[in-house]
Amino acid sequence: MRTYLECVPCFVRQALDASTLVTADPAVHERVLRETLRLAAEMRFDRPPPWMGQKIHQLLKEATGNPDPYRQEKERSNALALGLYPALKHQVRSSADPFAAAVRLAIAGNIIDFGCKSRITEDEVHQAIEAAMRDPIDETGLEDLRRSVEQAGDILYLADNAGEIVLDRLLLEEMPAEVVTVVVKGSPIINDATLEDAEAAGLTSLVKVIDNGSDVPGTILELCSPSFRERLASCDLVISKGQGNYETLSGLDGRAFFLLKAKCPVIARDLGCEIGQMVVCRGRTSAWETA
Amino acid sequence: MRTYLECVPCFVRQALDASTLVTADPAVHERVLRETLRLAAEMRFDRPPPWMGQKIHQLLKEATGNPDPYRQEKERSNALALGLYPALKHQVRSSADPFAAAVRLAIAGNIIDFGCKSRITEDEVHQAIEAAMRDPIDETGLEDLRRSVEQAGDILYLADNAGEIVLDRLLLEEMPAEVVTVVVKGSPIINDATLEDAEAAGLTSLVKVIDNGSDVPGTILELCSPSFRERLASCDLVISKGQGNYETLSGLDGRAFFLLKAKCPVIARDLGCEIGQMVVCRGRTSAWETA
Repeated sequence: MRTYLECVPCFVRQALDASTLVTADPAVHERVLRETLRLAAEMRFDRPPPWMGQKIHQLLKEATGNPDPYRQEKERSNALALGLYPALKHQVRSSADPFAAAVRLAIAGNIIDFGCKSRITEDEVHQAIEAAMRDPIDETGLEDLRRSVEQAGDILYLADNAGEIVLDRLLLEEMPAEVVTVVVKGSPIINDATLEDAEAAGLTSLVKVIDNGSDVPGTILELCSPSFRERLASCDLVISKGQGNYETLSGLDGRAFFLLKAKCPVIARDLGCEIGQMVVCRGRTSAWETA
Repeated sequence: MRTYLECVPCFVRQALDASTLVTADPAVHERVLRETLRLAAEMRFDRPPPWMGQKIHQLLKEATGNPDPYRQEKERSNALALGLYPALKHQVRSSADPFAAAVRLAIAGNIIDFGCKSRITEDEVHQAIEAAMRDPIDETGLEDLRRSVEQAGDILYLADNAGEIVLDRLLLEEMPAEVVTVVVKGSPIINDATLEDAEAAGLTSLVKVIDNGSDVPGTILELCSPSFRERLASCDLVISKGQGNYETLSGLDGRAFFLLKAKCPVIARDLGCEIGQMVVCRGRTSAWETA
């Protein structure tokens, strides 16, 4: 997905929100803001929004001298989600359709996204979970996903954020563990899940976990490791979580499913859905763009 | 009032909203957006926000080749407000306290502000008027203003926007016409009222109307004409309408009253009030900054 002009005010707001979140130093806030404005003034709109997301958060790492400014937030999100996990697990297992319940909860987890919103309260997570069990979902997409999972021999599950990854576990536990590989980011970017978070979520003892070799808040193939790209090219099903992965991988074909909450008007328009809607959709292009 | 870092994402959004409003040409949208980002990257934060507002809208005028891109919007706002005028006039005259009713309506008119919000619907204007007659207002400030108007021998009424200026007329008609001078902008900027709008609103046959010699969406004294600055220095009461005038003139002393709707969190924090609140407040500094 290209970057729209409307994304730019949002980048600038995110730069300010993010710097305010990770440091109280107003000189850093101003520096990150000015540098973001300079970058945005010269940016390319044919690239997906996470290109700029990565640049902004690289600026923030440089300005703070902190390679992982969201570490605490990520730990807080993981702890919050792990606290919810036993009750949610019970909810899935006692559901008439555990797979569908787990898909809904995995999508609800996508509300934990510091790229879109700087602070997420425990209350908002509870509300998102309740809404996810109740709100309409694309039933055709859900059945399509269920069948594809049943038939697949090699599934790549592209994780999105810390915290969210604990709710992904509910869905991963409804899949055949031996065919699933979870993919996390190669190094810290915003609150995106890394290997550390996959371990905290209990995924490493459940399925194979690899990283994509990059620190983009999404999956820009040319910035990922060759080994990840090979895995992506050879697998027969991709389950892609979240907006960042959708924005960067919307060119993937029917072997890919996108699971996300549509959190901004640009994404909602691109997907043809409402803001806040739970999305389960298959890749639409015919070419498998993994170059 | 200085510019806060939080104002910057808002400038960028305003630049995009404004260019979308005045032209359908995406090349202009992108050009204005990139130029705004470049300007904002180098801007001074010790100046009030309308400094940037003026620059952005100058860019827009240059990019469109249109010296008055909001002319149609201003005419639409004036026509809408003139349509409401007879009923509102009746409401004021039949009120137990016509002056207070007129102050409330003049403040309600301040919702017609394309600097803050790109589109205002007729419905929103009606709602603002209903709310203004019902919502709490600073009664002490209102009485203070009433007494000051009764005692003043030379009142400068700094108008804000087209449309709004028709509602200002209701308040101006409750003042002694011979001591009032209305001040409009020297040339078009956003939807700020110029002499043309004062005429459309029927003010020129009611009171003296002058312009401030500048095209800033507010009143930056060093950019105003010497004759306006002299009038400001010698008058004994200033009634300043709207956020832009507050942002640029908050340094005025107790001879000034600010009448506005607090429409953004930065202004609300600066004023110590809630967003949406109707404000009637006296200048707080002891020096009369008219240099």
